[in-house]
Amino acid sequence: MLNNIRMVLINTSHPGNIGAAARAMKTMGLSKLYLVAPLLFPHDKAIEMASGAQDVLNNAVVVNTLEDAIHDCHLIVGTSARTRAIPWPLLTPRELAEMTVKEPPHTHIAIVFGREQSGLTNEELHRCHYHLHIPSHSDYNSLNIAAALQVIAYELRVAHLNDLSHPIEDNEYVNQEEMEVFYHHLERVLIQIGFLNPAVPRQLMTRLRRLFNRARLDQMEMNILRGVLGMVERIK
Amino acid sequence: MLNNIRMVLINTSHPGNIGAAARAMKTMGLSKLYLVAPLLFPHDKAIEMASGAQDVLNNAVVVNTLEDAIHDCHLIVGTSARTRAIPWPLLTPRELAEMTVKEPPHTHIAIVFGREQSGLTNEELHRCHYHLHIPSHSDYNSLNIAAALQVIAYELRVAHLNDLSHPIEDNEYVNQEEMEVFYHHLERVLIQIGFLNPAVPRQLMTRLRRLFNRARLDQMEMNILRGVLGMVERIK
Repeated sequence: MLNNIRMVLINTSHPGNIGAAARAMKTMGLSKLYLVAPLLFPHDKAIEMASGAQDVLNNAVVVNTLEDAIHDCHLIVGTSARTRAIPWPLLTPRELAEMTVKEPPHTHIAIVFGREQSGLTNEELHRCHYHLHIPSHSDYNSLNIAAALQVIAYELRVAHLNDLSHPIEDNEYVNQEEMEVFYHHLERVLIQIGFLNPAVPRQLMTRLRRLFNRARLDQMEMNILRGVLGMVERIK
Repeated sequence: MLNNIRMVLINTSHPGNIGAAARAMKTMGLSKLYLVAPLLFPHDKAIEMASGAQDVLNNAVVVNTLEDAIHDCHLIVGTSARTRAIPWPLLTPRELAEMTVKEPPHTHIAIVFGREQSGLTNEELHRCHYHLHIPSHSDYNSLNIAAALQVIAYELRVAHLNDLSHPIEDNEYVNQEEMEVFYHHLERVLIQIGFLNPAVPRQLMTRLRRLFNRARLDQMEMNILRGVLGMVERIK
């Protein structure tokens, strides 16, 4: 299962943090690193901080957008220090770890880390099924990105080592790409029927994203929803 | 209880690691940092890596020897990646965390981190009640010192937040200083009675240290043992 988990770092400014993240991953048996538009990469400082984990750096996948990093994923978790205007389902690292070992095999999982200074944008957070918060001190919750990754990777490894069960369900969850196609379809239909005013969208799509992300649709359910949207489109 | 826990870093070579350790501590609500003969401290790189945790650096206690850092402690845990010739009682970070919340109040706890390259010496490890091993990947277990500290501090915090119980026992554990006085007394008596040959000491004192450290003596038991040693001394 650890092989199905990727760590996604967005717009990392300091190459040393990328190296330290690679090292943290390798110590816990993780190897899939995705870098979304890193500021400086490759870079000597990344190699220095990776210590013996240069293979993780060498195999890192560099992409331009978050979408490119997660389009084939079935479970997406965004790390966040802040609570948001629209609260999202929240996990602790331990809850996430315990969840991952119960996933059907072949579930692709992405854990997304934001920028050193500003974290993840609201739009990025709204692509996630869950948000993850490390229970840090309320007066000072600024974990270094590699330190946060180390804690999460450690919990994943501990759960993995402790897990003797094997998932019995075999839901075919839809991946992120299909979800985005669905959301676009949904938005189009909502505009068409006059429920959503594109000039004043408010938080409508955000709330719908939260709802359907939380539900984690399987293939059958997606077919049903898309079918419903298609029917509604044809009414007008 | 978190206030009774100190992090002890021995002979740290890179001041950046001291800063990162301070940051890791503060995010988890820990503040007591002891530095045993650091190579470079204070240092700009430490301040830079500490980010907003400079107060932890400012309050760090710099001492010359491990003994100075732990003499008033009742529970001493050494971090170790390696298994040793004489295996010591071993804890995972979670087991340590669960243990700390059950300790009597006023127990002073030290968690000791070794050098970046070579860890703790055998002599240092033998001063510990327990060794702690982070369950890392067997092929690559080289956690950065601040990353290791982050994982341990995180587990301490989680246990602390989860803990609703209050210890009912109130053992008065003896501290490290009293233990060292005892070990010296014991060694003297063993030599005196001809049981221990100082020219060929073998691992005798190490094994005795392991035994009595594991037992964690309280004040009453210590009085008894010292009394016995005194009696033996007077026989000759």
